[in-house]
Amino acid sequence: MHGYPFALQRLINEVSKLPGVGPRMAERIAFYMLKKESDYMDNFASILEAVKKITFCPLCFNVSEGGQCSICADDSRDASVLCVVESPEDIITVERTGKFKGYYHVLNGLISPVDGIMPEKLKLGELNARVKKTGGLKEVILAVNHTVEGDATVLYAVSLIKENGSFKITRLAKGLPTGSDIRYADELTLGQAITERKEI
Amino acid sequence: MHGYPFALQRLINEVSKLPGVGPRMAERIAFYMLKKESDYMDNFASILEAVKKITFCPLCFNVSEGGQCSICADDSRDASVLCVVESPEDIITVERTGKFKGYYHVLNGLISPVDGIMPEKLKLGELNARVKKTGGLKEVILAVNHTVEGDATVLYAVSLIKENGSFKITRLAKGLPTGSDIRYADELTLGQAITERKEI
Repeated sequence: MHGYPFALQRLINEVSKLPGVGPRMAERIAFYMLKKESDYMDNFASILEAVKKITFCPLCFNVSEGGQCSICADDSRDASVLCVVESPEDIITVERTGKFKGYYHVLNGLISPVDGIMPEKLKLGELNARVKKTGGLKEVILAVNHTVEGDATVLYAVSLIKENGSFKITRLAKGLPTGSDIRYADELTLGQAITERKEI
Repeated sequence: MHGYPFALQRLINEVSKLPGVGPRMAERIAFYMLKKESDYMDNFASILEAVKKITFCPLCFNVSEGGQCSICADDSRDASVLCVVESPEDIITVERTGKFKGYYHVLNGLISPVDGIMPEKLKLGELNARVKKTGGLKEVILAVNHTVEGDATVLYAVSLIKENGSFKITRLAKGLPTGSDIRYADELTLGQAITERKEI
């Protein structure tokens, strides 16, 4: 059987390792790149070069362009609230809501013994150190997923930090998504929404 | 709202242009690349550099590493059959079946006036010139999709080449996919399978 030219096969192999990309889609992406103008590859390569310079903020572990990230460097934010998230992606997701004006702390994952992710691998010690020394901290929001891993991480984080200050610790509300139809909600979500119903 | 560092945003933008990749998936892919070892980017960039050297075969328009492609350069294949396909990807797809030992001709698309793809944009003139000068050609297989675009291309190609030799022109069989359940087949496919039923 005749295959692809070696360089093209390497590109397909490399692309198929990307998350969410299967072998057929990798072929499609590789051919898309191949059919572009020749400066397309140079452009892509220069972007990869620039991305290599991205570091992580030493305070909150968000992505950064060297040193503190743009959020930690912003003095106008509310230092009394700290939002703990799983990953830097989640910071942007929360920022998009426009509902949060405090600072962030990235854990770099959630506790998951099945996947070998134990508390020591996460930035939980750094979180503990940070809440201890942050003056005037009133609230720590644990903005993690409502999953087994999220629950385990919340349990661990609460036991770790709760004695270190007079802040309250909160978690995101559980309930029905906005715009959703209760007929299509799963029982767990609907059950939670009933249990945590609010007076209006 | 705080966004991603500039270099990371550029990577996300570039990745989200790839076929089949939406904005959320582009973020996931960009972060996947970011979390890799630093030589990952260099490796990827060197692959892109190598892919720039890939050209197209001047005879059949398959991908090639300079000059004729590996199939056209292979004298052991059957010169009496020519398989016409939409793209170089399709050559590999046909090769994987192990059912075809002849040569190929890539059209670089299918006729689609809606998308502005007229016959002149495709390698149909080259196909015509090729069948004229190929001695001993017995069959031209038009291995294109069973779609409106495929049908239009077949109609045009047949009218163009049929007077240029004594070869027969064939198209891939329509019918039910192997392993499929007739209960889940669409009516068009099942109808075709009934019309073109075979005596056993």
